[in-house]
Amino acid sequence: MIVVMKEGSTKEQVEHVVKRVREMGLKDHVIIGEERTVVAVIGNDRFKDHGVLENVDGVDRVVPILAPYKMASLEMKKERSVVPMGSDASARIGGKRIGVIAGPCSVESKKQTLEIAHAVKEAGAVALRGGAFKPRTNPYSFQGMAEKGLDILAEAREQTGLAIVTEVMAVEQVALVAKYADVLQIGARNMQNFNLLNAVGDQPKPILLKRGMSATLEEFLLAAEYIMSHGNQKVMLCERGIRTYEEYVRNTLALAAVPELHRVTHLPVIVDPSQGTGKSNLVDSMCRAAVAAGADGLIIEVHNDPEHAMTDGAQSITPPMFADMMKAIRRIAAAVDREV
Amino acid sequence: MIVVMKEGSTKEQVEHVVKRVREMGLKDHVIIGEERTVVAVIGNDRFKDHGVLENVDGVDRVVPILAPYKMASLEMKKERSVVPMGSDASARIGGKRIGVIAGPCSVESKKQTLEIAHAVKEAGAVALRGGAFKPRTNPYSFQGMAEKGLDILAEAREQTGLAIVTEVMAVEQVALVAKYADVLQIGARNMQNFNLLNAVGDQPKPILLKRGMSATLEEFLLAAEYIMSHGNQKVMLCERGIRTYEEYVRNTLALAAVPELHRVTHLPVIVDPSQGTGKSNLVDSMCRAAVAAGADGLIIEVHNDPEHAMTDGAQSITPPMFADMMKAIRRIAAAVDREV
Amino acid sequence: MIVVMKEGSTKEQVEHVVKRVREMGLKDHVIIGEERTVVAVIGNDRFKDHGVLENVDGVDRVVPILAPYKMASLEMKKERSVVPMGSDASARIGGKRIGVIAGPCSVESKKQTLEIAHAVKEAGAVALRGGAFKPRTNPYSFQGMAEKGLDILAEAREQTGLAIVTEVMAVEQVALVAKYADVLQIGARNMQNFNLLNAVGDQPKPILLKRGMSATLEEFLLAAEYIMSHGNQKVMLCERGIRTYEEYVRNTLALAAVPELHRVTHLPVIVDPSQGTGKSNLVDSMCRAAVAAGADGLIIEVHNDPEHAMTDGAQSITPPMFADMMKAIRRIAAAVDREV
Amino acid sequence: MIVVMKEGSTKEQVEHVVKRVREMGLKDHVIIGEERTVVAVIGNDRFKDHGVLENVDGVDRVVPILAPYKMASLEMKKERSVVPMGSDASARIGGKRIGVIAGPCSVESKKQTLEIAHAVKEAGAVALRGGAFKPRTNPYSFQGMAEKGLDILAEAREQTGLAIVTEVMAVEQVALVAKYADVLQIGARNMQNFNLLNAVGDQPKPILLKRGMSATLEEFLLAAEYIMSHGNQKVMLCERGIRTYEEYVRNTLALAAVPELHRVTHLPVIVDPSQGTGKSNLVDSMCRAAVAAGADGLIIEVHNDPEHAMTDGAQSITPPMFADMMKAIRRIAAAVDREV
Repeated sequence: MIVVMKEGSTKEQVEHVVKRVREMGLKDHVIIGEERTVVAVIGNDRFKDHGVLENVDGVDRVVPILAPYKMASLEMKKERSVVPMGSDASARIGGKRIGVIAGPCSVESKKQTLEIAHAVKEAGAVALRGGAFKPRTNPYSFQGMAEKGLDILAEAREQTGLAIVTEVMAVEQVALVAKYADVLQIGARNMQNFNLLNAVGDQPKPILLKRGMSATLEEFLLAAEYIMSHGNQKVMLCERGIRTYEEYVRNTLALAAVPELHRVTHLPVIVDPSQGTGKSNLVDSMCRAAVAAGADGLIIEVHNDPEHAMTDGAQSITPPMFADMMKAIRRIAAAVDREV
Repeated sequence: MIVVMKEGSTKEQVEHVVKRVREMGLKDHVIIGEERTVVAVIGNDRFKDHGVLENVDGVDRVVPILAPYKMASLEMKKERSVVPMGSDASARIGGKRIGVIAGPCSVESKKQTLEIAHAVKEAGAVALRGGAFKPRTNPYSFQGMAEKGLDILAEAREQTGLAIVTEVMAVEQVALVAKYADVLQIGARNMQNFNLLNAVGDQPKPILLKRGMSATLEEFLLAAEYIMSHGNQKVMLCERGIRTYEEYVRNTLALAAVPELHRVTHLPVIVDPSQGTGKSNLVDSMCRAAVAAGADGLIIEVHNDPEHAMTDGAQSITPPMFADMMKAIRRIAAAVDREV
Repeated sequence: MIVVMKEGSTKEQVEHVVKRVREMGLKDHVIIGEERTVVAVIGNDRFKDHGVLENVDGVDRVVPILAPYKMASLEMKKERSVVPMGSDASARIGGKRIGVIAGPCSVESKKQTLEIAHAVKEAGAVALRGGAFKPRTNPYSFQGMAEKGLDILAEAREQTGLAIVTEVMAVEQVALVAKYADVLQIGARNMQNFNLLNAVGDQPKPILLKRGMSATLEEFLLAAEYIMSHGNQKVMLCERGIRTYEEYVRNTLALAAVPELHRVTHLPVIVDPSQGTGKSNLVDSMCRAAVAAGADGLIIEVHNDPEHAMTDGAQSITPPMFADMMKAIRRIAAAVDREV
Repeated sequence: MIVVMKEGSTKEQVEHVVKRVREMGLKDHVIIGEERTVVAVIGNDRFKDHGVLENVDGVDRVVPILAPYKMASLEMKKERSVVPMGSDASARIGGKRIGVIAGPCSVESKKQTLEIAHAVKEAGAVALRGGAFKPRTNPYSFQGMAEKGLDILAEAREQTGLAIVTEVMAVEQVALVAKYADVLQIGARNMQNFNLLNAVGDQPKPILLKRGMSATLEEFLLAAEYIMSHGNQKVMLCERGIRTYEEYVRNTLALAAVPELHRVTHLPVIVDPSQGTGKSNLVDSMCRAAVAAGADGLIIEVHNDPEHAMTDGAQSITPPMFADMMKAIRRIAAAVDREV
C-alpha cells in the first residue's frame, strides 16, 4: 500500500506512520515529493486493514496496491479452471465449449419442470436450473416447493441427463440441497452471506456464485475466495446485472465484467441475461452479446407458460424462443472460435 | 395495478388481459384513451406477481399502485412505534428522546470494550454497540471474538447499565446472540437474507435492521415486513448509506430517507453516520444533520485507539470526539423540540 | 397519465383533481378501488408538466403513460432511419451494413492524423473521428487544435475518402465545424445543452448524439427530439457507457440499450466501447459484444502512439489492434446476418 | 502520481516507464516490493494526462496523488471566501450568516414574481431566484420568458432590495443576463459546458455553480477552476442532489458533500433541497439538515400557487411553508453558532 500524507504533514507524523507500518510487520520507504510525502509500504499487506492508517494524524489517504484475494487470482493459477457440473463430461463450464444452463425460475410442478427440461435439453442445454428455495423480496410471495421441488429436479435429471443447478439460501439447507443437486447456486442477495459461503466451501459440490447487485468485482472475487479458502475450488462466477439508475431494465448487465474477470481470475464466467435485464424481449440480444464478449456459460430462465409463471414471468422466455436463441448463439460462438 | 397496453394493441389482447386479471381474483376496468388503452385492476393485488402480465402479448408495462408491505405501513398503524432496547426505560428508540447507540466496531478485548462503554455512557449514550460476529469482505480478516465477545458485552452492560446491540449473521447464531444481547442487529449485507429475517422474527428481542447497500426503501420495508409477519413487531430501521459513484465516501448517506420513511411507516428510524460516510472526519457533521432531519436515533462507531482498531479504524471517532458531538447534537435536538 | 390518490383521500380532493385535469384540456376517468382511488387522464398530456398535480392535496403520485417524445419514436415512423455520413454512399449508419468510425481522440498533428486515417481506412472504417475542440475536465489540459485541427481532418478526407466526424462544443462553433465536417458530434457532457441541440437542429449536417453519462433513455431520446423538432432528422444515437459505482472501468457500457432503443425509436444506434470502458484492453471484447447485440455502428479511438497521446491514451488501441478487431467483428457480423 | 507495475513486469518495462516519466519533465523513484514494483513520480504532475502511462506495457494502473485543481483548493487560499451577491452588504454567502435564496422555479408573470419576492423577503431571504431561460428536458415544454423575465426580476429587486440569482444557459446569453442579474447561475446540466464556464469566468458577476447530476466532487471543483482560471474568483458551489438508483426522490441529496467540500476548498457551499429531493414534502427536513451540516446558504423553490406552476410544481413550497421553514432553521442555525 501507499500512504499519502497531507500537504504540510510534519516530520513527526511521517515518523509515526513509519512506526505503525513496522508494527504491522511491514517495511517502509519514505518518498518526499515537492508537495506531498508518501510512505510506500513493502511486503504482503493483503490481509491488513488499511483503514486504520487513514485515521492517523497527518495521513490524507491510503492506496492499496495488492489485490486482496489470492486463490481466485490468475497470478496464483495461470491456467483457466474448468468446472464440471455433474457426471456427464459434457456438462462443464470453462474451456472451448460454452455451457448453457436453462430452466424455470421456480419449480412449480412435476409436469411443468419435466416439460421444460426436455425442451431445453433438446435445444442444447447442458444443465437445468430451477429454484426449490426461492429468495423473495416480499414475505407473502410464493417461497418455493422446498424438498418436493428438489425431488422433481432429480427426476428431471433422471429423464434427461441434464445436470441440476439450484439455489441454496441458508446454512441449514446445504446438506439437503447438495444431496439432490449437481451445482449449488448462491444468489445475488447472499453473495456476502459469509456463513453460507463458508458452508458451501466445506462441501464438494461445485458452486455457481452470483455477483451481488451492487458488488464490485473485488468483492465478488473475495466472496469466491471465502468458498475456495474453505477447500472448494469449483467456483463459477456469474454476472447477473448491477443496480444503477436505469429504469427500462431491472438491472444493468455489465458485460465488460467478462473480459475483466478473465484478466484477473482463472475462474470461469457465466452470464445471466434474464436477471441481467428483467425483460424477456432483451434476453436474446444479451445472450448473443455475452457469447461474443467471451462468456464461458449462460444461465437463462425458460418457462412454458410465462404468463402463469409463479415467479419472474416478466423475464422468462418460452422454449421456442430458447431454441431460436440457441441457434443464434451457435453461429456467434463459431465466429469467436468457441462452440455451444 | 394499472396494465398499460401497447399502442395498437388489439381488442383480443385487451380481452386476454381482462381474463387473466379475473383469473387472479381481481376486478378490471378498461379505459380506452386516445393513444393507449389501460386496464385498471381493482382489488388487493399487493401479493400478486405483477411481472407475469408484462409478458402477455400487447402489454407494454404494469404499474403497481398499492405498497407491497402492510404491517410496516403507517396506514396500518397510525401512531409511531417506540421500541424498547432493554430493561432500562430510558433505552428506547422512538418518541421525543433521540437514543444514541455507540461503541466499537468490534469487541477486541475486555479492557477496550469496558473503557469505551464507560466513556460513551458518561457522554450520554443509552446503548452499547460492538460486534462479536463480524461480516468481513475478506476471508482472511479478523472475524470477531464470537461468544467470548458476547460475554464481554454482557459484562459491559452489568457495569454501565447500557443496553447491548450486536450483530447476528446466521440462523444458527440467533439463540446464542439473543441470550446475551438486548437488540439483535441485522447487517446491511444480510438485509435480504430471508431465512435470517424469519429466524429473528420468531424470537422476541428487538431488531435493528440496516438498509442494504443498494436497497430501495420498498425493499427495506419488505425486509421489516418479513420480521413482523413472523411475529416480532419491535423493528428499528437504520439508514447507513447507499452505494453510488461517489468516491470521497464509502457510502452516500441518504438523509431524505428519514422524512420519507416517517411518511410511510410507523417504525422508528436510526441513522448510522459511521458506515454512512466511512470517514471519521465526516461523522460529526452527519450526526448533526441526521438529528435536524428528524432521526429517532443514531448509531456511531467509537474507539479509544482508532489507529490500532481491528476493524473500521478509518471511520471510528474517539471518546472525546464523541463527547463533543453529543454536546453539539443536544443543542440541535432542542432546536427541533427533541432531546438526547 | 394516471393520478394515484392517497389512501383516505376525500371526495373533494378527487373532485379538485378532476377540475385541474379539465383545466388542462384533458378528460378524466375516476376509478374507485378498494383501497385507493385513481384518476385516469385521457388525451395527449405528453407535453404537460405532470409535476404540478403531485403537489395537489390528496394526491400520492402521478404515473405518466405516454412517452414524452414523438418524432424520435418508432410509433411515428415505422421504418428504421438510415443516416448518410458524407458524399460516399458507403458511409452510412443504419441498414444491414455496420459502419465503423475510428480515429484519434484528438487531432494532434497532420502527420499523426493522416497516418491513423490511412490505417483505419485500410482496415475498413468508413469514417474518421478526431477532436479539434476538446471538452476537458481540467482547464489546464490540452483543449484541441481548433480550426487548424478541422483543416487537418479535411485533408485526411481528401486523401482517404473517409467521412469526418468531429465534436462541436458550442453554438458559436457550429457554422465553423459544419463547414469542415461531415457529421457533427454532440458529446456526452453536452447532451442536455439545449441551446446547442437547437443550433445543430437548425443546420443540415447529420448529428452523432452521445448519451449523457447519467441520462435515462427517455432523456436521451428527448435530446434527439430537440434536434429533430428544429428540422434536422439525421440523428444517430450513441451509447457510450454510464456512470455507476463500478471502478475497474471509467464507465459501464450498457449494451441492453441497443435492443431497447431499437424497440422504441427508428434512429440508428452506435456504440462507443472506448469511452464505454476507458480501458484499451476491454475495447475488443466490447466491440464484439456490441455487434452481436445489434449495434448499427461503432466509434473507436485509435492512436498510432497511445503512450504519447495528448488525450485518452488509456483507452486508445493501435492500428494493428484495430485491424485485428475489424477481422473479428466481420465474422460476428456475418453470424448475425449483418456485414461490416 | 504512483505508477503500479503488473506482477512479473520486466526490468525493461520499468526502465521504459522511467524514461517516459523523465520525458514528462518529472522525477522518478522506483520501489521494488515483494510482489510488485511501483514507480513514484515526483514533481507537479497535476496537469499531465496520467492515462497515457496506463497504456504502457507492464503497467497495471496509475494512482494520482495531487488534487488536479489549484485555485479552488484550501491549500492555495487558507481563509474561506465570502461571495457578495449584490450591492446590499447583507446579501452574501460565506461567513457566519447563512444566506437564503428563494423564489419561483420560473418567472411566469410580473404579478406572480412580485408576490413571491415580497413574501420571501419578509420571511428573511436575501436573494430572489427565478428562471428566465429554462433548461427543459422536453423541447415542447415552457422554455422561459427570456429578457421579459429578466426585466421582471429587475423590478422585483427594485421593489424588495433582494439580489437576483438567475440561470444563464449559453455563451450568447451571458452579457444579457449579466446586465440584469446580480448572480449568474450555471445549472447542473451545464456544469461541464466548458465554453460557458469560460464565458462567465470572463465577466465579473458572481457565479452560483450547481453540481452536475453525476459529477464527482473533483469534477465539480475543476468546473469551478475553469471559471476562476479565467479571472472570476466569486464562485459559490451548490450541492443539488445526485442521480442514484433511489426512486422516492428525483435526486439523492448528498449532504456529506458539505463538510467534505469545506475540507478541500475555500469556496462557500450552498444546498438546494428543492432539486435535491424533487418533493415539496421533503424540503423542510432537508433545509434543516443542510444548516446543521454546515451549509453556507440555501436555495429553495417557492411558488404562490404550486399546482398551477409552469415548472417544478412538485417540489415548490408555498410562502407560508417557507416562512415556517425559516423559523425552524433560525433555531438550528443558532444551535450551530450561525445565524440566518
